[in-house]
Amino acid sequence: MLSPYLLFLGDVVELAAAKTAAGILQWRPEFCVGQIRVAGGTVDLGLPEMTPQVAAQKGAKTMIIGIANAGGFIPDSWIPTLVAALEAGLDLAAGMHTRLADLPIIRDTAKRLGRTLHDVRQPTQTFPPGNGRKRPGLRLLTVGTDCAVGKKYAALAIEKSMRARGMKADFRATGQTGIFISGRGVAVDSVVADFISGAAEWLSPANEPDHWDVIEGQGTLFHPAYAGVTLGLIHGSQPDALVVCHEPVRRQLVGFDHYPVADLEECIAATTRAARLTNPKARAVGVAINTSRMTEAQIEDSIAQIERQTGLPCRDPIRHGMDRIVDHIQTIWPA
Amino acid sequence: MLSPYLLFLGDVVELAAAKTAAGILQWRPEFCVGQIRVAGGTVDLGLPEMTPQVAAQKGAKTMIIGIANAGGFIPDSWIPTLVAALEAGLDLAAGMHTRLADLPIIRDTAKRLGRTLHDVRQPTQTFPPGNGRKRPGLRLLTVGTDCAVGKKYAALAIEKSMRARGMKADFRATGQTGIFISGRGVAVDSVVADFISGAAEWLSPANEPDHWDVIEGQGTLFHPAYAGVTLGLIHGSQPDALVVCHEPVRRQLVGFDHYPVADLEECIAATTRAARLTNPKARAVGVAINTSRMTEAQIEDSIAQIERQTGLPCRDPIRHGMDRIVDHIQTIWPA
Repeated sequence: MLSPYLLFLGDVVELAAAKTAAGILQWRPEFCVGQIRVAGGTVDLGLPEMTPQVAAQKGAKTMIIGIANAGGFIPDSWIPTLVAALEAGLDLAAGMHTRLADLPIIRDTAKRLGRTLHDVRQPTQTFPPGNGRKRPGLRLLTVGTDCAVGKKYAALAIEKSMRARGMKADFRATGQTGIFISGRGVAVDSVVADFISGAAEWLSPANEPDHWDVIEGQGTLFHPAYAGVTLGLIHGSQPDALVVCHEPVRRQLVGFDHYPVADLEECIAATTRAARLTNPKARAVGVAINTSRMTEAQIEDSIAQIERQTGLPCRDPIRHGMDRIVDHIQTIWPA
Repeated sequence: MLSPYLLFLGDVVELAAAKTAAGILQWRPEFCVGQIRVAGGTVDLGLPEMTPQVAAQKGAKTMIIGIANAGGFIPDSWIPTLVAALEAGLDLAAGMHTRLADLPIIRDTAKRLGRTLHDVRQPTQTFPPGNGRKRPGLRLLTVGTDCAVGKKYAALAIEKSMRARGMKADFRATGQTGIFISGRGVAVDSVVADFISGAAEWLSPANEPDHWDVIEGQGTLFHPAYAGVTLGLIHGSQPDALVVCHEPVRRQLVGFDHYPVADLEECIAATTRAARLTNPKARAVGVAINTSRMTEAQIEDSIAQIERQTGLPCRDPIRHGMDRIVDHIQTIWPA
C-alpha cells in the first residue's frame, strides 16, 4: 500500500466506528494528509477535510476506508466518492468483509485507470496448517480480556519502546488496522479455520535469537464467538512473553452484554496455560490497561491493585507508554 | 447427495488413507454398492469391485472420493475415472481441499451431462459470528486427546444407542466423512476463522427440550495446529454433555511426533472448563476409547483404570457400543 493516505470516514456518527482511521492517525500521523466524509457523516479526526483531487495534489497515493460497520459491507452511498478517488489518481484500500474487487463499478474503474485495490481483510495467499515446531527468535503476543481493549496499541507501544532502546523489534499485524499501520501482516480472523496457527507461524518466522516479534493479539479465550481465533493465534505465535490487555471499568464484552469480562487473573492463567502447549517457557510479563474511561484516581488505584495482585508491571500504552513493561522484559531476557 | 454410492479408493495403499470410505461403509453399508480403484491402488474394503457403468446399472447414484491424501488434492491419474463416472450417469462427491468444480474437465463434463458435483469440504453458505445465547434442547459433543481418535464413531454410536431406546437424537456432522454418512452438516475446519462458533451454532439449532444433538467433535485443545477449530466448535455447540475420546496406547499426536498425546484427565478438565463459558452446566459423561491396536487384556485393564481415575463410564464405541454411557446420560437427564 502506497502512503500517504486520505482517510475515508463515510457516513459514520460515532468515533468507535472510525477506529481503523483513528488507529492509523494515532500511530502513523505522517502518513495522513486529510479526511473525507459523505453526507450524514459527523466523525471528525481533526485532519483537513479534502476532496480526492486535493489529496492527490498534496501527494496522497491511497484512500483508505477507515471505518468498520456491522457486517463489513460497503453501502451504495459511498460508491461515488470511491470512484472519484480512483479518478483522482488514488489507489483504494479497505479491510471490510465485502471486497472492493467484488463491486463491479469499482473493479472496472480501477482496471480502466490502472489503479490498485487493496482488500487487506482477505488473505492474498494460502497457508499450510501449523507445524508446532519451535522457531528461533523471541516473540511477544498481546492477549486480553475482551476485543477492542488495546492489544494493537500495546503491541505498537512495546515495539516503539524496544526500538528506542536499540532492541531489535518488529510489530506483526493480525488485523486490518494494524496492516494499514505497518504496511503488512495477515488478518487472522479471515483465514480458513484449519490454518489459523499456520498463518500465525508464517507471520513471525524464524529470526535472530535476540530479535523480538511483537505480535498483535485478537479477541480473548473468554469470547463466545472469537476464542477459536485467539487460541490458534496463541499456538502459532509460540510467545515467550504475554502482555495481557484489560479495561478495568468494562463489565461486559463489547457487543455481547450477556457475557461478563473475564477476571484478569483467570485470563492470565488460562492464556499462559494455552501458550505453554507450543512454548513451555511462555510467561506473562505485564498488564496493559485501557484507561480511556477512567479518572486519574481510578487509574492510580487500578494500577496499584493490579500490580499487587498479579506481581506484574501495569501501564496504559497510550497514557504511559510501555517502558516499564519493557524494563521488566529486559530483566528476564538480558541482551 | 443421492445414495447409493460407489466408493472411489484411488491409488492409495494404506487403509488409513481410505478412512472416509471406510467410515461410510461402517455406518451406512446399505448405501454402498461397490468400490473402484485406479492403477497402483491396493486398499480393499471388501466391496465388489465395479466400473461406474456397472455401479449405475446396480442403482448407484453418486461416486464418492472416499480417501484423504496430504494436501487434499486430486491427482491427474484419477481424472479419467471421475469423467467415466459422470458419463455413466453418476454424480460426484468429494471432501478434498481441491474442489471438483475447480477442475475444468470435471466441471465442463458435469455441466454438459447435467450431473451434480458435491464439494462437501467447502461450506455452501456463509455464517454469522456466534452469538453465545443459550438455545433450547440438549447437546452432546465428542471431544478428545487427538485427531482421528474416534470422535465421529463415538457420536454415531451414541445416536444409535439413544434412538434404539426411543430418545430423540440427531447426529450432527462437522467433517466430510460425517457429512457423507448423514447427508448433511458443515465442515467446520473449512469455514472462515471468525465464524467457527457461528457455524457450530447453526449446526445444532434450537430444538425440543428433550432432544439431543449428538455433535461430532474435531481435533483437540492440545493440538498445535487445530486447537482453534476445537475451541470454536466447543463454544458454538454449547454442550450439556461431553464424551471424551482417547486411544490409551497412542503416545504422540498423529503426524505430530514432537507432541505427546495429552493426559486424559487434563483433557477432561480443560475441555469442561472451556465448554462452561457458553454452558455453565457442561459436564463430562463418559470416555470413548479406541481399542483397535490393543489386546483383550489391555482393553480390560484400560477400562478399569480409566473408570477408576475419572469416575466416568468407559467403552469402545465399535467394540462395545455406547449403551453404558447413554445409561449414565439417562440417570443425569431422566426423560
